[in-house]
Amino acid sequence: MKYDSLDVIGIGNAIVDVLASADDAFLVRHEMTKGAMMLIDEAKAKLIYETMGPTLVSSGGSAANTAAGIASLGGTCGYIGKVNDDNLGMEFRHDILAAGVDYRIAPATSGPSTARCLILVTSDAQRTMNTYLGACVNLRPEDIDEAFIRSAQITYLEGYLYDPPLAQKAFHKAAEIAHAAGRKVALSLSDSFCVHRHRDAFKQLVDLHVDVLFANEAESNALFGTTTMRDCIAQLRGVTEIASVTLGPTGSLIVTPEDVFEIPPTDVDRVVDTTGAGDLYAAGFLYGMTSGASLIESGYFGSMAAAEVITHMGGRPQLPLRTLVPQARERVLQER
Amino acid sequence: MKYDSLDVIGIGNAIVDVLASADDAFLVRHEMTKGAMMLIDEAKAKLIYETMGPTLVSSGGSAANTAAGIASLGGTCGYIGKVNDDNLGMEFRHDILAAGVDYRIAPATSGPSTARCLILVTSDAQRTMNTYLGACVNLRPEDIDEAFIRSAQITYLEGYLYDPPLAQKAFHKAAEIAHAAGRKVALSLSDSFCVHRHRDAFKQLVDLHVDVLFANEAESNALFGTTTMRDCIAQLRGVTEIASVTLGPTGSLIVTPEDVFEIPPTDVDRVVDTTGAGDLYAAGFLYGMTSGASLIESGYFGSMAAAEVITHMGGRPQLPLRTLVPQARERVLQER
Repeated sequence: MKYDSLDVIGIGNAIVDVLASADDAFLVRHEMTKGAMMLIDEAKAKLIYETMGPTLVSSGGSAANTAAGIASLGGTCGYIGKVNDDNLGMEFRHDILAAGVDYRIAPATSGPSTARCLILVTSDAQRTMNTYLGACVNLRPEDIDEAFIRSAQITYLEGYLYDPPLAQKAFHKAAEIAHAAGRKVALSLSDSFCVHRHRDAFKQLVDLHVDVLFANEAESNALFGTTTMRDCIAQLRGVTEIASVTLGPTGSLIVTPEDVFEIPPTDVDRVVDTTGAGDLYAAGFLYGMTSGASLIESGYFGSMAAAEVITHMGGRPQLPLRTLVPQARERVLQER
Repeated sequence: MKYDSLDVIGIGNAIVDVLASADDAFLVRHEMTKGAMMLIDEAKAKLIYETMGPTLVSSGGSAANTAAGIASLGGTCGYIGKVNDDNLGMEFRHDILAAGVDYRIAPATSGPSTARCLILVTSDAQRTMNTYLGACVNLRPEDIDEAFIRSAQITYLEGYLYDPPLAQKAFHKAAEIAHAAGRKVALSLSDSFCVHRHRDAFKQLVDLHVDVLFANEAESNALFGTTTMRDCIAQLRGVTEIASVTLGPTGSLIVTPEDVFEIPPTDVDRVVDTTGAGDLYAAGFLYGMTSGASLIESGYFGSMAAAEVITHMGGRPQLPLRTLVPQARERVLQER
């Protein structure tokens, strides 16, 4: 098959999010850790669903959110992730295609149902995630099309993909193809618990294959066993060309072997739901990198895209993000 | 069966909303009338879905939104509407129960699938709705439980329910039971095209059975064939005890045989999606009426609930509306 040249291909768990508001007592009752992603089985998913509040259903998945964000910014993007051919799977498929993302992975026609993430949003806008991986466990190395990966400037992998065992192999295959073709590989560490689960494998992957690393403070410290940002930065400099560390409401850092750039957040009136904040930061940053922007400008694009997604429930952009790009460019000119 | 005493029972088309942003050209291409509700068949629903943007899925249905709103305000509410026992039907059922609404109508186990409304939200925050009625056509007079209706202070009917033919009978049955029990009947006119489709039937219903009427300007003028608010008000006074006419961003009027009260809107930072604005206005107003508030105060509750729902995509409240009641009360004290 022939492919157009793409800016980014995202590889991740193809998930439909089911979001509801909840109070802290709900999290305690279900033994959830606020802000984390917990893996659950289908029975537990049913149990949580039955007790959670009225829901909004929105396609999600970390790398898929990033892919949708890049497309919304005006970049060209592909996505690899596995759904089942059930209703939720068809919804995921509709939404990623409708976002303008190149998505060609056939749904599984048997086996587990499409993955769901039950997300509880507390009044502090934190999101606590419970993921039933379902059909995601069927993503295999065979799903990685060599020509597709070669077509993209950057192959972007989400750390969550280390949870389904076969996907790790798909991951490595993709990274090897990308590098053999002189392309770049980016990784998001996804979640500090996920880092703890797969720390050695992540360290190996970062050493071998990662050119651009996305993480928040907790995740990057978890990777290196560091406790301060200073120590963490020293480690990051040794292993990747570019690392972006998001710091929640205080913005982000871009770390290169030579520099550390502080990127301010983009202010919003009210933070409603932080689902997708990191994913959309990555979208803005990768859009910048692949469209010839400077690292600082790319960071501002990240802040801007993250700011849009936290103003509403759900991890996908609701505005065409490309309409916000001129403002972000203007800010860079004024502030730097 | 025994029932607790309820403030309000809503009867309507049980619908799951599928919302996406769209531009005006999309509406033109599909021959949609901006701001209106159009009935479509399942094939057309599939066609529109395939071409619309990434979606958010949220339970909807006019009277169901109102019922969820009343429960969110702290009122006690029941709901009657028909779904199929498919995925969307189970989602509707989950969401209305999770909202705290008393909902006991068994899903249909055969026949058409659960109703969907494909909603296109344009950048001016207008919503344009395309409804496949599906299982709603199975709502029958047998679904109206006499004791349930008698248990509620107000039985609230949505005008959209005149589209599925058998539901009209269910409607009249409910109104008769309510009045025989000395209860009140409220009606929302729903949509000006819907009024045109069923004008004579609506006029008869209003004359016979409606104590509280909800409409916007276009709908109330459509009902009476009037063209000015002044003429329309004169007509409203002749037929109902209380009429509320919503005027979009300029607020609403409460019309009684003696008075016309002007109710200001509640300001919001940004209007995102007007889906559910009228439904939530009715929720606030009915919550006020059934909790001993004055008509003016009830109007302010209506404005307040409508203001919350237009700040986000989807027609159901995302905040516990009861937390906003004290502010609305305070405003009444300051302004009246």
